[in-house]
Amino acid sequence: MLDEEPENVALEVEEVHPADLADVAEALPKERVAEFLSALPAARAADVLEYLNDELRSDVLEAMSTRQAAELVTQMTPDDRADVLEALAEENEERAEEILEQIPREAREETERLLAYEPYSAGGLMTTEFVSVPEALTVEEALQRVRAMARAERREAMYTVYTTDEAGRLRGVLSLRELLAAPEGARIADLAWSEVVTVAPTAEQEEVARLTSNYGFVAVPVVDAERRLLGVVTVDDVIGVIEEEQTEDVQKLGGMEAIDEPYLAASFWTMIRKRVGWLAALFVGELFTATVMQQFEDELKVAVVLTLFIPLIVSSGGNSGSQATSLVIRAMALQEVRLRDWWKVARRELPTGLTLGVILGVIGVFRVLLWEWLGLWRPQPHYQLVALTVGIAVMGVVTFGSLAGSMLPFLLRRIGFDPASASAPFVATLVDVTGLAIYFLAAALVLRGTLL
Amino acid sequence: MLDEEPENVALEVEEVHPADLADVAEALPKERVAEFLSALPAARAADVLEYLNDELRSDVLEAMSTRQAAELVTQMTPDDRADVLEALAEENEERAEEILEQIPREAREETERLLAYEPYSAGGLMTTEFVSVPEALTVEEALQRVRAMARAERREAMYTVYTTDEAGRLRGVLSLRELLAAPEGARIADLAWSEVVTVAPTAEQEEVARLTSNYGFVAVPVVDAERRLLGVVTVDDVIGVIEEEQTEDVQKLGGMEAIDEPYLAASFWTMIRKRVGWLAALFVGELFTATVMQQFEDELKVAVVLTLFIPLIVSSGGNSGSQATSLVIRAMALQEVRLRDWWKVARRELPTGLTLGVILGVIGVFRVLLWEWLGLWRPQPHYQLVALTVGIAVMGVVTFGSLAGSMLPFLLRRIGFDPASASAPFVATLVDVTGLAIYFLAAALVLRGTLL
Repeated sequence: MLDEEPENVALEVEEVHPADLADVAEALPKERVAEFLSALPAARAADVLEYLNDELRSDVLEAMSTRQAAELVTQMTPDDRADVLEALAEENEERAEEILEQIPREAREETERLLAYEPYSAGGLMTTEFVSVPEALTVEEALQRVRAMARAERREAMYTVYTTDEAGRLRGVLSLRELLAAPEGARIADLAWSEVVTVAPTAEQEEVARLTSNYGFVAVPVVDAERRLLGVVTVDDVIGVIEEEQTEDVQKLGGMEAIDEPYLAASFWTMIRKRVGWLAALFVGELFTATVMQQFEDELKVAVVLTLFIPLIVSSGGNSGSQATSLVIRAMALQEVRLRDWWKVARRELPTGLTLGVILGVIGVFRVLLWEWLGLWRPQPHYQLVALTVGIAVMGVVTFGSLAGSMLPFLLRRIGFDPASASAPFVATLVDVTGLAIYFLAAALVLRGTLL
Repeated sequence: MLDEEPENVALEVEEVHPADLADVAEALPKERVAEFLSALPAARAADVLEYLNDELRSDVLEAMSTRQAAELVTQMTPDDRADVLEALAEENEERAEEILEQIPREAREETERLLAYEPYSAGGLMTTEFVSVPEALTVEEALQRVRAMARAERREAMYTVYTTDEAGRLRGVLSLRELLAAPEGARIADLAWSEVVTVAPTAEQEEVARLTSNYGFVAVPVVDAERRLLGVVTVDDVIGVIEEEQTEDVQKLGGMEAIDEPYLAASFWTMIRKRVGWLAALFVGELFTATVMQQFEDELKVAVVLTLFIPLIVSSGGNSGSQATSLVIRAMALQEVRLRDWWKVARRELPTGLTLGVILGVIGVFRVLLWEWLGLWRPQPHYQLVALTVGIAVMGVVTFGSLAGSMLPFLLRRIGFDPASASAPFVATLVDVTGLAIYFLAAALVLRGTLL
């Protein structure tokens, strides 16, 4: 259709949601996307642009004439406009500057103000299109303002109405529902809630997400040190933040740096760069296992049977540590557990780890006894003692793993790192080195004078 | 204050958000919470009840008189009322029944209808308090209805207005903003969008969350097979779903079953039950490492130096596998990668794994050479060949780990399991067994005729 009747495209897709049009655009050959957007009314095209992935959007804005790109970007909401230009600037700083210059003055200055904030802060997330009314107004007057704003095609934070004093300082808040429900003639000041939860523009986006989710807000107001209202963060942006943070946490838990683009869109070298750092660090850490084993070379020579259980024992510690660390990281992310709770956590993990260790230890003991009784290996002298060694080692390693895995996130947070860096592989490496020491210690105690 | 002037409590906290009052209630001694709630007006107390954690809420509802509990629960929104009774029924079925019987008939029937849906489905999440108007109305008439609903203290899905035909079937949707912006006298039918994204009541909650997040909705309508509007899922519930799903994913990635209560609230035995299953399964899987090693007992006896590098080699495979699996699981959760994309992912992971493997392999080779040159261990005959064996094995194991870690989520999904069960420990166990085989194979090839 784009080929034969481009003038009908706009009409055909009038009822289609911009997110779906963005999917259509992403399926088109790259060089035709700009053409497709040009066939739509500017406001629609701006909506579609907002839903495109960063890479394609930047390509489209580079392919269009500066004038056309500026026109589209001007139609976007202030926060999306700033985000789009920020993403474009990363690829092509010059082009982003050119487009910004072509935006009408008022919108440009607003965009420049928003661009000055850190992208991952409340200031970077907020929109400047919100409804605030002097608290002296009546309900009907306030409702008139809201309708005027709605008619002006300003689309954003409309469902919460903020009241301000003469100096423009935030005084109260009421939901659009409360405004609609209010008796006519009432004064806004009497209706509004005076305890307003606010954030500073420098607040981290996680903090904004936590407030929204805890209180069930549709919007969080951003105020400066004098409590003047700067903007509002809306719930749709918060969902984006929550998903972004979660992606980061999962990737870190997997033992790598977070990748801020879709898996299939990330380049080969991005992938290597984000993965090799931790992998190499863990590898170097794991080299200590060879050093530990070297200390016990003589024991290993006389009792090769001990070698057979090395991977089993160290991995069971890594597994229990991985469970504990993922539990604690998630509990920290949801603020169920704080730094000062480390002792409560340790007091839970010690008995839990011990119980799990005993269960696995018993399985380990049976494995050794079974192999001997069923003749599945060459008969081992002192096989009962070998079984005992394996059981004790598994118990010790699993207990240590649970404790180390649960404490590592606390330790990292304490020294100022992201607790989510306490990845499963990190814990496993830590426990591997210690686990070997525990194993050989158990062997030395149990087998001294017999096998060793 | 609760002790001295209970009648003033309501007045003092009038302006405090119910989420904060819930925090206050949680800090009180358990037996005083019911008393605290009684001091508040019923509607306020119902709001606070909604924000309490499940356990405390159930306790409070058990401590109150049935009549008082029913009065509070009646004040809640229909979806929260159903959730609260569902959670209570898990602890104390009889008590939940008693309370339900005391709720006024209309609200009771509505609650029973909602309770009939699966709790993790769209039907289980939705509220039945939404605004729908016949499409024949004018803008002013529709706005009157919205205001009437707002005045009736029905607090939920108000920001989206649905239009229906004479048979009550969903025909269109418009936002409250669009309604407020509409010219007076216009007909609703002409303004509403006719392409409405809907879900069935049986739709999984993840599906609802995905739609909300992709389209930036504040509400998703739930319709039956005849497109009659049954209810609406609101964005605050969706945020809850997203956080719940993320908690599950992180815990599964850590190698355990998901726990649906806060870490510190879960009992000791819940903790053991959710962790021991996977831990024991992985332990049994890991037992195969002993079986593999048994096959190479003779080689280990003559070349103890090989033993030193076992933990190093198997863990580097587990680490690279953990990276790959967490990348793929997250990409699947965000629907960036689908089942049919497995081949694309494999084609990326093979070269990535190989590159990472070569980098780590080189570090491994240097470690062996360095120890020999610096005299940090007993001089090893054929140390260059040992270094080569370690290098080749690390390369092979890391490549295999990346490939296995990225393919396991696809395999699990293909056979009908949750791909998030492909935990870091699961992958590590898989790679440990294979990794040992790779290592001894490399040793057999390189060292045959010299050390072996």
